[in-house]
Amino acid sequence: MTTTDRRSCELRDSDDALRGFREEFLLPPETIYLDGNSLGPRTKGATERAREVIEDEWGTGLIGSWNTAGWWDLPAKLGDKVAGLIGGGAGSAVVTDTTSINLFKAASAALKMQAVDAPERRVILTQRENFPSDIYMLQGLAEQLGDGYEVRLVDDAEVTAGFPTTMTAEVALVVLTHVNYRTGRLFDMESTTSAIHAGGALVVWDLCHSAGALEIDLAGSGADMAIGCTYKFLNGGPGSPAFIWVAEALANRFTQPLSGWWGHDRPFEMSPDYAPAEGIRRYLTGTQGIVSMSVAELGLDIYSHVDMAAVRAKSLELSDLFIELVDSRLSAHPIEIVTPREHAHRGSQVSITHPQGFAIMSALIARGIIGDYREPEVLRFGLTPLYIGFTEVWDTVEALRDILDNRLWDAPEHKVRGAVT
Amino acid sequence: MTTTDRRSCELRDSDDALRGFREEFLLPPETIYLDGNSLGPRTKGATERAREVIEDEWGTGLIGSWNTAGWWDLPAKLGDKVAGLIGGGAGSAVVTDTTSINLFKAASAALKMQAVDAPERRVILTQRENFPSDIYMLQGLAEQLGDGYEVRLVDDAEVTAGFPTTMTAEVALVVLTHVNYRTGRLFDMESTTSAIHAGGALVVWDLCHSAGALEIDLAGSGADMAIGCTYKFLNGGPGSPAFIWVAEALANRFTQPLSGWWGHDRPFEMSPDYAPAEGIRRYLTGTQGIVSMSVAELGLDIYSHVDMAAVRAKSLELSDLFIELVDSRLSAHPIEIVTPREHAHRGSQVSITHPQGFAIMSALIARGIIGDYREPEVLRFGLTPLYIGFTEVWDTVEALRDILDNRLWDAPEHKVRGAVT
Repeated sequence: MTTTDRRSCELRDSDDALRGFREEFLLPPETIYLDGNSLGPRTKGATERAREVIEDEWGTGLIGSWNTAGWWDLPAKLGDKVAGLIGGGAGSAVVTDTTSINLFKAASAALKMQAVDAPERRVILTQRENFPSDIYMLQGLAEQLGDGYEVRLVDDAEVTAGFPTTMTAEVALVVLTHVNYRTGRLFDMESTTSAIHAGGALVVWDLCHSAGALEIDLAGSGADMAIGCTYKFLNGGPGSPAFIWVAEALANRFTQPLSGWWGHDRPFEMSPDYAPAEGIRRYLTGTQGIVSMSVAELGLDIYSHVDMAAVRAKSLELSDLFIELVDSRLSAHPIEIVTPREHAHRGSQVSITHPQGFAIMSALIARGIIGDYREPEVLRFGLTPLYIGFTEVWDTVEALRDILDNRLWDAPEHKVRGAVT
Repeated sequence: MTTTDRRSCELRDSDDALRGFREEFLLPPETIYLDGNSLGPRTKGATERAREVIEDEWGTGLIGSWNTAGWWDLPAKLGDKVAGLIGGGAGSAVVTDTTSINLFKAASAALKMQAVDAPERRVILTQRENFPSDIYMLQGLAEQLGDGYEVRLVDDAEVTAGFPTTMTAEVALVVLTHVNYRTGRLFDMESTTSAIHAGGALVVWDLCHSAGALEIDLAGSGADMAIGCTYKFLNGGPGSPAFIWVAEALANRFTQPLSGWWGHDRPFEMSPDYAPAEGIRRYLTGTQGIVSMSVAELGLDIYSHVDMAAVRAKSLELSDLFIELVDSRLSAHPIEIVTPREHAHRGSQVSITHPQGFAIMSALIARGIIGDYREPEVLRFGLTPLYIGFTEVWDTVEALRDILDNRLWDAPEHKVRGAVT
């Protein structure tokens, strides 16, 4: 039996050192937003920043704003801010394009390195449960390269065990999501990277579900490359641009095939020959959407005064509480918690399954508690310490209990597909 | 001798049927903006549209806005609007990513078709004076493919002559800018496409400097694929997303290698196997920047009630006037007009050279007349009929005359590089 009640959750909220960050976000009233692992909420200054970019920079500065407003340097400027959050140094990351496209760049460059260092290695491993777009991009790359390049899917257990059966002498590259988007399982970056390197392969980490959610030390872990988005835990706005990070020792070794003018060493010479910029800038391609990029900077700036250890600690407390309450208060129902119970294996979400998962999530959303649903049967609840508190976790589980105990999901309006993203 | 004077230009402006469109744009006072071929000006509703997206769609609608606000469908919705301007039917284009990245998709798919139809063809031709990023992207693709794939650069005269010396049996693909970004030379789409097809190659047209500037009939010309940006003549905002168009007969023949989840036939099934969507949607990759994309729609919407024949007619009248005035009023100076004098070979800009081109453009900008400078020696003046009038052309050439006659460019502040984009 748990002694937790709503009052004890309120007390924890009032003691929460991160509580002030809630003011950085503008959430609708009467809403518990547990989908920040899919789309972070609106940042306080976003409208004003967009207005500035549109009226002052675009409207008044016109073409000159590429220099005077610093548009040209935004990918590097924002990249430095992301790098500070993921254990990379200044100049090790850029914000640009989409996660999928950045994966294509990273994987292409990694395979090019292996083609020189170990040309017999032509297999890419990735989790069967990696976010599907990553898998599709790797399939597209392997198909384009032909010549025996191939993508092999591995189970999460194979990754956590250090690839005992799949790390053969054919493996060139391993592409791993740091956190499983569906279950919330976290993979250990340092030991996994070591196992991959011991096997002679390179690694690209996808940080979409971990950047801004927990402490990451890419350089300290010996990682080779990383990619990720800025619109989930980093609150950059819908579809805000992604990032790419490359280890210092590798950044100048190879170019990537999406070699557009933004990655050129002297772009305004307009030479017909490509000459890659030094370092991470060679991972840039073409002209970036400046309004979306500028709004994304606000999300990153919030993190300039956030203690990531405190974020991680609160995230685990929130998910511990969620799990405790599901165990103690929903035990009469056929619910399975698919998120690992060990802290070391848990990201910043709790996912549960129920045969009526879709209808249950629809009923929750109808009362202002917004999580999301992923096939098959999974209800996901993102726990974002900057704007979610303990009382909201309590209220969410109580709402679930009400919906389950009273079969409130069993209404026709909750079964219409398309109602839940 | 010309009989043109400022008064006659004012009369032409007052008779101009397109003059009302100037109200759709918000230009700074005391500015003549002749760089809309590089970055179109601010559209009237841009700030309000950004506010709606940020406050109502992102802030209030949150994750649900992917469906309820139509975010997911924006690339296809905007693509239809672009298609209407370039001679494609509904469903033939999408707005997404950057021009450079869309070129990589198009060229990759085209080479894949040729690898089946004519595998000995492995050469890509493109103009030596194509915008450099296009050349760099093709070089990146050829290097990635290896196996004899190669990019060859051809002079503009070779293109206009129908490739008499370069169209060999090795040529798989020709990538052509429709208008030379530096000189403003326009290439004839129909006859050039025919010459390329007669040679057994496919063609990708880059419409960055023609979409929104003149009438384009891609389907009627028999073109295979096209790409272009929305931030020049289409006034989408800084770095707004690009477009890609594929001829109906080719759209389902092959996939492109940047095969992300937005191009999947059933993206929310989260299957680990890529299955391309039908038609042009398979040219989508990852999640798009929704604020930039939404603002771009306003620029496209202006064209829904524009007569492109009238735009083209006025564009030629503006450039005829510019050329006439340079000939008649700047004849004492070492100026060369590098833009073709024949209408059939002229885009929507006039470019002139002068040994002191950089300093002259700097002096012009200092008095609020904004063109731009491109190495070597080229001053570019974009002539955009929706918001530029005849009097502004007169005033521009008069300012040039003053600067040249009085050597006003010969001041130290006009020689500092970096002052002009």
